Amino acid sequence: MTNQERVWQRIEKLSAIGKTQDGGVTRYSYTDEEAAANELVKSFMEEAGLEAGYDSVGNLYGILKGEKDETILIGSHVDSVPNGGNFDGPLGVLGGIEVLQTLQEEGIKPKHTLKVMAFKDEEGSRFGLGMIGSRAVAGTLTQHQLQQQDSEGVSIHEAMTSMGYDPTAVSEAALTQVKAYIELHIEQGKILESAQVPAGVVSGIAGPVWLRMKLTGEAGHAGSTPMNQRRDTLVAASLIIAEIERIALQHPDLVATVGQIAVKPGGTNVIPGYSEWTLDLRHVDEAVRDQAEKQIRDATAQIANERDLELEIDEMQRISPAPCSEQIQQLIQTSLEEAGIKPITLPSGAGHDGMQFIGKWPMGMIFARSKDGISHNPKEWTTSDDVATAVNILDRTVRALDQT
Amino acid sequence: MTNQERVWQRIEKLSAIGKTQDGGVTRYSYTDEEAAANELVKSFMEEAGLEAGYDSVGNLYGILKGEKDETILIGSHVDSVPNGGNFDGPLGVLGGIEVLQTLQEEGIKPKHTLKVMAFKDEEGSRFGLGMIGSRAVAGTLTQHQLQQQDSEGVSIHEAMTSMGYDPTAVSEAALTQVKAYIELHIEQGKILESAQVPAGVVSGIAGPVWLRMKLTGEAGHAGSTPMNQRRDTLVAASLIIAEIERIALQHPDLVATVGQIAVKPGGTNVIPGYSEWTLDLRHVDEAVRDQAEKQIRDATAQIANERDLELEIDEMQRISPAPCSEQIQQLIQTSLEEAGIKPITLPSGAGHDGMQFIGKWPMGMIFARSKDGISHNPKEWTTSDDVATAVNILDRTVRALDQT
Repeated sequence: MTNQERVWQRIEKLSAIGKTQDGGVTRYSYTDEEAAANELVKSFMEEAGLEAGYDSVGNLYGILKGEKDETILIGSHVDSVPNGGNFDGPLGVLGGIEVLQTLQEEGIKPKHTLKVMAFKDEEGSRFGLGMIGSRAVAGTLTQHQLQQQDSEGVSIHEAMTSMGYDPTAVSEAALTQVKAYIELHIEQGKILESAQVPAGVVSGIAGPVWLRMKLTGEAGHAGSTPMNQRRDTLVAASLIIAEIERIALQHPDLVATVGQIAVKPGGTNVIPGYSEWTLDLRHVDEAVRDQAEKQIRDATAQIANERDLELEIDEMQRISPAPCSEQIQQLIQTSLEEAGIKPITLPSGAGHDGMQFIGKWPMGMIFARSKDGISHNPKEWTTSDDVATAVNILDRTVRALDQT
Repeated sequence: MTNQERVWQRIEKLSAIGKTQDGGVTRYSYTDEEAAANELVKSFMEEAGLEAGYDSVGNLYGILKGEKDETILIGSHVDSVPNGGNFDGPLGVLGGIEVLQTLQEEGIKPKHTLKVMAFKDEEGSRFGLGMIGSRAVAGTLTQHQLQQQDSEGVSIHEAMTSMGYDPTAVSEAALTQVKAYIELHIEQGKILESAQVPAGVVSGIAGPVWLRMKLTGEAGHAGSTPMNQRRDTLVAASLIIAEIERIALQHPDLVATVGQIAVKPGGTNVIPGYSEWTLDLRHVDEAVRDQAEKQIRDATAQIANERDLELEIDEMQRISPAPCSEQIQQLIQTSLEEAGIKPITLPSGAGHDGMQFIGKWPMGMIFARSKDGISHNPKEWTTSDDVATAVNILDRTVRALDQT
């Protein structure tokens, strides 16, 4: 059995680094806070008897040698969004260390080599490019991507150099001989809470399409332009946003979100001649997502056309959904059943490092119950009991995977 | 007949003061630009043989003495919005001067004293309080209002003092013995253009109600919050904005505009937990406006309630509609008919100085045709022929009014 007290204390210790006034954390990648967080986690790895170090991009790793070189990777991250929570990322890294430390304490030498990693910059909060470390491990991080800059004009390339890493040696971080990747993460939603279970099986990671929709009509005086002579882009945007929700509700597990909107000129007494907004559309099944996207694009074009408005749609990003390995899902399900927990299978709406490994090696995820679904927020919470249960499910699953 | 060439040249000369790169003007009240504009207009008044000067708040006037002291006021303004047009305000002032100059040239002594005025700060662009000069003339400008500040913290009181006016003597600007007020202004809409007439009769000035509506729901992760677990304020706002248009279209001549909207937290992948937007609602008939406002408030409350959102509505301003004098409307209509123009009667959606005189003395307005309805914009345009026609309608109407 893993040690509930030890994991919880490590979560608390890690929460002190980059701590905000609200009790959350801000730890951007390639900063002193994030380096301090990694050093603390490295000390936990050493306590656990692991061979710890950093790869060429700064990913932290801790290795427990097995009979074979073929490796089971266990990972997550310790960077955060601004004023983020204490569990998003740390749970998976500290949970992975706990599993390896428990094996060590029980004197078990695994068949496969077990490697726990804290990937660099999962969140993308600093440079607008997330999953930097896991991209490097997958061997897909490009020199072009390293040119992306933070808000102060510092590129990833420069940030790596300033922290003592060699951006020209990115390819050295790429791993081979990986048997599988497994990650424990908080759900960041309310599905497990609604089902009253502490942990669940992730079916896959919903890939987001991000679109920016722009409508151009005509500004005009709010008092002197009759309703039937208007080309008001905000009324059209409103009809479209209502339609997006209607379409999303037609497809189970699809989520569609308009999170930003801006209008110009923006005066109380001026008809908005220009409106733009973002759309975030996700589903674990790419075909369902594509169908919903087409419905939304058609409805948007029709409303723009009916109201004589010019429509432009920019694609900001398009990430393929990442289905989890059926075999690993089955192992997690069995682990839950053995622990007496009703196995719930749910999609991950949020992105995770495992997405980078699709097509390379099998990937699986375990979710731990979140309180009220709150995440990316200092109020993010998972109870100590749920943490312990989820780490035990990870432990059972890693042991079972090691036997396959 | 008034002199087309002279009026047009004066419009062009006045357009050079405070001129912007785009060919518009920026003339805030109590600034050097606005003072220079007034001095130029004063020189036109003197050319016209009028007794010209400034009252205690800085309103410019030019007087043509009649047989009686009882006065017909003709006015508008020469201040502007930022990067505004060359006709909004100047047309009424320069048109009024032209009417008085023509009477002078024809050797006609009017029965009533005729007084043309350029009122201080009609637009409200600097201090957020419009119609400062006409309020003073109506005797309603308060010391409290003079405390309103511009974006640099300068109060109206201080601005008046700095330009040599005495803010403690505001009441001296109040006029009595006024028979009627008449103003020529550009339409700032497309109704006359659609009807293919150069000028029209204004039925009244639609008073605006400005509301700020605020919805509070719950922010959440765009990926991990199922559609049926959301309290998304932007979707609700969208349904409400669509409903506002639907309600507005039920009432002829009612205009309803949502010109500003903002959501928080404002991330592409975050459900908007807070949205706020403005509503500008206008009609010349207060009862119609009140009915539409109730419908909108009811629909808004219902949508907020259905979606478990907290609704707050702040009233930013509430100005009573100002009906134009039936008698003056009749005189303008006759003037149009005599000039061979089909008389169109239309409401003014925009506010004008005449609103301040409701309940004090009869008020009437003539609109000149705007090109494409564009206003508060350097592209604001009225042709020289339309200017001449509109000034002639003002001339005919003032002469007719003088005989009553």
